Amino acid sequence: MPDITLLETFATPTSTPFVIEHTSDEFTSLCPKTGHPDFGSITLRYGPAPANTDAGKHGCVELKSLKLYYQSFRNEGIFYEAVTNRIRDDLVSLLRPAWLQIVADWRGRGGIRSTIRADHGAVPGHWLGR
Amino acid sequence: MPDITLLETFATPTSTPFVIEHTSDEFTSLCPKTGHPDFGSITLRYGPAPANTDAGKHGCVELKSLKLYYQSFRNEGIFYEAVTNRIRDDLVSLLRPAWLQIVADWRGRGGIRSTIRADHGAVPGHWLGR
Amino acid sequence: MPDITLLETFATPTSTPFVIEHTSDEFTSLCPKTGHPDFGSITLRYGPAPANTDAGKHGCVELKSLKLYYQSFRNEGIFYEAVTNRIRDDLVSLLRPAWLQIVADWRGRGGIRSTIRADHGAVPGHWLGR
Amino acid sequence: MPDITLLETFATPTSTPFVIEHTSDEFTSLCPKTGHPDFGSITLRYGPAPANTDAGKHGCVELKSLKLYYQSFRNEGIFYEAVTNRIRDDLVSLLRPAWLQIVADWRGRGGIRSTIRADHGAVPGHWLGR
Amino acid sequence: MPDITLLETFATPTSTPFVIEHTSDEFTSLCPKTGHPDFGSITLRYGPAPANTDAGKHGCVELKSLKLYYQSFRNEGIFYEAVTNRIRDDLVSLLRPAWLQIVADWRGRGGIRSTIRADHGAVPGHWLGR
Amino acid sequence: MPDITLLETFATPTSTPFVIEHTSDEFTSLCPKTGHPDFGSITLRYGPAPANTDAGKHGCVELKSLKLYYQSFRNEGIFYEAVTNRIRDDLVSLLRPAWLQIVADWRGRGGIRSTIRADHGAVPGHWLGR
Amino acid sequence: MPDITLLETFATPTSTPFVIEHTSDEFTSLCPKTGHPDFGSITLRYGPAPANTDAGKHGCVELKSLKLYYQSFRNEGIFYEAVTNRIRDDLVSLLRPAWLQIVADWRGRGGIRSTIRADHGAVPGHWLGR
Amino acid sequence: MPDITLLETFATPTSTPFVIEHTSDEFTSLCPKTGHPDFGSITLRYGPAPANTDAGKHGCVELKSLKLYYQSFRNEGIFYEAVTNRIRDDLVSLLRPAWLQIVADWRGRGGIRSTIRADHGAVPGHWLGR
Amino acid sequence: MPDITLLETFATPTSTPFVIEHTSDEFTSLCPKTGHPDFGSITLRYGPAPANTDAGKHGCVELKSLKLYYQSFRNEGIFYEAVTNRIRDDLVSLLRPAWLQIVADWRGRGGIRSTIRADHGAVPGHWLGR
Amino acid sequence: MPDITLLETFATPTSTPFVIEHTSDEFTSLCPKTGHPDFGSITLRYGPAPANTDAGKHGCVELKSLKLYYQSFRNEGIFYEAVTNRIRDDLVSLLRPAWLQIVADWRGRGGIRSTIRADHGAVPGHWLGR
Repeated sequence: MPDITLLETFATPTSTPFVIEHTSDEFTSLCPKTGHPDFGSITLRYGPAPANTDAGKHGCVELKSLKLYYQSFRNEGIFYEAVTNRIRDDLVSLLRPAWLQIVADWRGRGGIRSTIRADHGAVPGHWLGR
Repeated sequence: MPDITLLETFATPTSTPFVIEHTSDEFTSLCPKTGHPDFGSITLRYGPAPANTDAGKHGCVELKSLKLYYQSFRNEGIFYEAVTNRIRDDLVSLLRPAWLQIVADWRGRGGIRSTIRADHGAVPGHWLGR
Repeated sequence: MPDITLLETFATPTSTPFVIEHTSDEFTSLCPKTGHPDFGSITLRYGPAPANTDAGKHGCVELKSLKLYYQSFRNEGIFYEAVTNRIRDDLVSLLRPAWLQIVADWRGRGGIRSTIRADHGAVPGHWLGR
Repeated sequence: MPDITLLETFATPTSTPFVIEHTSDEFTSLCPKTGHPDFGSITLRYGPAPANTDAGKHGCVELKSLKLYYQSFRNEGIFYEAVTNRIRDDLVSLLRPAWLQIVADWRGRGGIRSTIRADHGAVPGHWLGR
Repeated sequence: MPDITLLETFATPTSTPFVIEHTSDEFTSLCPKTGHPDFGSITLRYGPAPANTDAGKHGCVELKSLKLYYQSFRNEGIFYEAVTNRIRDDLVSLLRPAWLQIVADWRGRGGIRSTIRADHGAVPGHWLGR
Repeated sequence: MPDITLLETFATPTSTPFVIEHTSDEFTSLCPKTGHPDFGSITLRYGPAPANTDAGKHGCVELKSLKLYYQSFRNEGIFYEAVTNRIRDDLVSLLRPAWLQIVADWRGRGGIRSTIRADHGAVPGHWLGR
Repeated sequence: MPDITLLETFATPTSTPFVIEHTSDEFTSLCPKTGHPDFGSITLRYGPAPANTDAGKHGCVELKSLKLYYQSFRNEGIFYEAVTNRIRDDLVSLLRPAWLQIVADWRGRGGIRSTIRADHGAVPGHWLGR
Repeated sequence: MPDITLLETFATPTSTPFVIEHTSDEFTSLCPKTGHPDFGSITLRYGPAPANTDAGKHGCVELKSLKLYYQSFRNEGIFYEAVTNRIRDDLVSLLRPAWLQIVADWRGRGGIRSTIRADHGAVPGHWLGR
Repeated sequence: MPDITLLETFATPTSTPFVIEHTSDEFTSLCPKTGHPDFGSITLRYGPAPANTDAGKHGCVELKSLKLYYQSFRNEGIFYEAVTNRIRDDLVSLLRPAWLQIVADWRGRGGIRSTIRADHGAVPGHWLGR
Repeated sequence: MPDITLLETFATPTSTPFVIEHTSDEFTSLCPKTGHPDFGSITLRYGPAPANTDAGKHGCVELKSLKLYYQSFRNEGIFYEAVTNRIRDDLVSLLRPAWLQIVADWRGRGGIRSTIRADHGAVPGHWLGR
C-alpha cells in the first residue's frame, strides 16, 4: 500500500533557489479494474523550500526513501490519474516546496500511451508543458 | 461509423488543475476520395473540468471507451481535417473541459506527411505549437 | 476478405539472381478472438524466378496490386501466425520464386510485441534471422 | 516551370481556428548556377481562413494538387531563397490564410546545410523559430 | 509464484518450419537477496513443433496466457539466471519445440546491465548471439 | 536519358584487394506508369580489379562522373528493378570488377518501401544480405 | 588566415522579413596554445536587410564564398571564443542584417564539449537559447 | 578535494554580450553515505562579464583548468545537491559573470536518474528549464 | 588497486550451456602517463562452467562483487590494453568458464575512441567481432 | 606531409590473441583536384603480433603518436583510396600485425558518401564487411 511514512527528508542546503528533478523509470502499480500491472515512469520536479525558512529544514526528499515509497505502490490497484495526484499531494505535504510537478508517463493499454501531469504552486512557465 | 455513444466518462478526481494526455498510434480511417486507408496517430490533451463543478462530474474520458470510439472510424471515409475537428467537437461536448487539444499526425500520401491541430478554449501557450 | 485475385505480376527483367524486398508499415487486420484491430509491418523478401524460366514470365509482384492485396485483410479476423503463413503461401503459388520470406512485426497486445517469420525454399543464410 | 494553376483548394471546414501542416521530403529543383539538382524538404504550416469568411471558401489547399505544384519545380533553375519566397507568395495569394509559414530544409552543397524560413502575417510566436 | 498451469497452447498451423518471437518489455520480479524489484525484457523465440507431429498439436503458446504466466513472477524472489532457465524449461516441457531461446535483458543494478540467454535444441546459428 | 558515356575511370591504385563503397542519397527518376518522381538512395559497393591486371587500368569509377551518371536518370521513366539492374550492368561493363553490388532503397509508393539488390560475381558472403 | 575578402553577397530578394540559416559541419582551426586542430560546427542564422534598403543590396551571403571564408581558418591558431566573435563581426560588417547569430559547437578537448553563441542586434527571443 | 585554486581565467574578448557553454560528460565523485562512485555530466553555461568592466579582466574560465578542477572532485564524498551548488558558488566568485547556470545530470542510483540545476543572477528565460 | 579478492562466485545453476553478459557503463581508471582519468564501458560475456563439473561449483560471478572489483581500478594508473587483459585473466582464473570475452570501450583521448577485446577459449563465432 | 616517423610503438602486452580498435572522427586531408578539404573518420583495427615474437616487441601503436600521424595528412592533397592504402601500408610495415584493417568513412562530396576498406592478412571473417 502506498506508504508516506517511508519518505525521509533532509534540509535544503542553500537559500538560493534551485531545481531538483528525479526520474524513476521503474514504477509499477495495478489496474484497479483488471488487476493487470501498469508500468510507467515518474518524474518529480520541484523548487525546494529555501534553507532560511521553516519548511527548508525538511525541504528535500531523500533519494532512497523516495524509491521505497514508489515501490509501495507495487501491488496497489490505483488509476493513472489517482497515482499522479496522490504522489503530488504526499510530497507537497511533506516538503512544502516553492513549487512541485509530477509527470507520469505510462506505457499504455490497448494501444494508447498516456501522460498525466499534476502541478503544485507557481510552476515556472517553461516547465508547464513537460 | 464514428460513434460518440461509445464514449464513457468518469468524475475528475480533484479540483486542482492538471493535464491528461492520451496518444493512440493505431488510428486508421479511409480516404473519402480513393477509398484507400489512412494511418495516423491521434493525441488528445486536455485540462479536465475541476471536481467541484458540474462538468467535473463527467470530466474525464474513460480509456477503453476512447479506444472503441477511435476504432469506430475504421471504415469511415473522412478527410484529415474533418477527423480532427470531429474528434475535438465530440470530446468537448462530452467533457466540457477547461481546454482541449487534438493533434493528428498522418503517415502521409504521395510523399507528403501532414499534421492537423485543433484546439478548444484557452490552450496553455507552451502547447500551442505541439 | 484476403483476396489473391488482386495480385498482379510482371516478368522478371533478368536471369541474373537478384533480391526484391517490399515493406508495408500499414498492415492491419482483426483479432479473431476479440474483434479488436491488430497493426503490423509486413516485409516480403524474395529471389524472383529467373527471366529464362517459365516461372520468370510472372516472376515479380506488381507493387500497387500488393498494396490492394494487403488491404483486403483489413476487416478479416485472423491470427498472427495465420496471416504470415497465408501471405507466404499466396505469394509462393503466384510467383514460384527461387526463395521467399515473410516477416511480420506486430505492434503487440497486452504489452507483448511479436514477430512471425515464414520462409519458402532455400532462403540465403544471412537472412534466416531477420 | 513552377505552375500555380496546378493548385486546388477546398473550403475551410470550420470557423474555429486550427492549424494545418504538410511536409514534403521529396522536393527537388536545380541550382541556377551549376545546373546540379538540389534536394530538400518543404514544410507548409498555416492557419486557414475561417469558414465564415470569403477567403474561407477556398481556405485549404488540396493535398494532391500541392504535390503536383511542388513537382513543377523539378527542372527549374532557382535559388534556395527564391524557392521559399515563391512558394509562400503563391500559397498566400491562393489561400488568403490567417497566417502562413514555409520552412525549407536543404540537404546542402559544399558541406553546408541550409534552412530558409519565410512567414506571412502574424505567425504564432512558438512557431517563429521552427 | 511462477505458475506453469497458466500457460495455454494451440496447434501449430503448418508443417513448414517457421519462427515465432514474443517480446515482453514489462517483466518484473524481486531480487531474492534485497527484496527490491528487478525490471527486464524477456524475448521468447522458437521454432514450433510441426503440425504433422504429436507435439505440433500443442506447439504454439497462446499470447494472453504467456502474459499471465510472466505476471506470476511479479512477487517472486528469484535470481536473473534462475528466471531465464526456469522460463526456458517451462516452455520447452509445454511446447516440445524444434528449438527455443530465451533472452532476458535486465535494466541492471549497481550500474551494471545484464543479459542472460538460455537455449534449447539446435538454435539456428544466426540467433546464437542475440 | 541514362548515359554511360558520362562515367570516367581511374586505375586501381594497388593489387591488394580492397573495397570501395559510394552511397548517393539523392537519386531520383520517374515512374514509367504514372510519371511521378521516385526518390531513393543508391549504394555501389565493389572490389576493384587489381592494379596488375588489364581491367585494373580502369578499375575505379571517378566520383564526380558517377554523380553525373546518376543525374542522367532524373527525367527517365524507369522501374525500380530496371534501374538497379541497369546501373549494375553499366558499371560491370565499365570496371570489370572482382565483384560488385548495387543496393537501391526507395522511399516507397502507396505506403510500401522497397529495396532492390543486384550482384555481380562472387560477392563476399557478409555483404549478401545488405 | 581568415580572409573577409573571400565573402561575396547578393541582394536580398524580398522586403518581407525572412530567416536564413547555414550550418557547416566541417569547420576546423588550430588551438593557438597546442597547435592541435579543433573541429566544430558553425551555424550562421540571420534576418537579412530588406530589399528596399541600401543594406539589402548586398544583404545575403553567397554560399560558396561562405565555404571558402570558413576554409580560410584551417591553419589559423585561434581560440573558440575568438572564432565565434570574429565570424559574427565579419558577417555583420558585410551584410548589415536586421539581426544575426553565430553558434559554434566544438567537438571538445579533454572530455569537455563547448558551445559559444554570439548575437548581433535584436535576435528573436525563441532563438536566444539555441 | 575540490580545489578552486586550480581554476584559471582569461579576459573576456568583447564587450558585446555572448554565451559560453562547457559540458563535461566525465564527472565523478563519491556518495558520502555509501562510498560508491557517482557518475554524471556537468554543464556550465554563462554570460561572461563584459570586456569593459573590472570583472571582465578575468571573465572567462580557462578550459583545461576547468577540467582539472572537475577532476579534483574524484575522490570527494559529496551529495548531488552539494556538488551543484559548490560548483556554482566557486565559479561565480571567480568569474563574476552577468549570469551563470550549472546543470548536473546524474546516471542515477537505485533506478532513479536525477538532475540538479542551480542558477546565479538573471538567467535568460529560455534557459531556465534546461 | 585492482583487487581480485573482492570477487565472489556462486554455483552455475544448470548443466545446459547458457550465456551471461554484464555491462558496466561506469568504469574509470587513470592514464599511467598523464594521471588523467579514463572512462569506459566494460562488457563481460561468458559461458559458465556447467553445474555438473568441479568448475561449475563456482562458475558464476556475483554481480555486486563484480561492481566492487571494477571500482578497485578507480585510482589505478593502467593502460587500456592492460586493463582489458587483466580483467580477462582475473575472471578466467576465478570462474574457469567454457569461454569468456571482455570488450572495453573507451570514451577516448585526443579525439580517438578505442575498443579493446580480449577472449579466452572457444568464443562462439558470432561474438568474435563484438 | 604524411609522416611515418611520427608513429611510436610499444610491446604487445600478451601472447594471447586480442583485438585493438582505434577510431578517429577528426581526420581531414585535401582533395588533390580541387584543393578543398575532405573530412572523414578512420578506424584502425588489428590483431597485434604476439608478445612472444620479434614483431611483438613493437606490436602496438602508441595512441598519441597515431593522432600526430593522422594530423600530418591535414594539408596533403591525396585521394580517398590513396589515404586508406597509405595508412594501411605504413601501419603494417611498422607493426607487422597478425592482421589489420583500415576503414575510412568520408562525409562525401557532391551528395555521395564513400567508405573505403583496406585489409592486410587474414582478417577474421566477421569483420570483412565492416
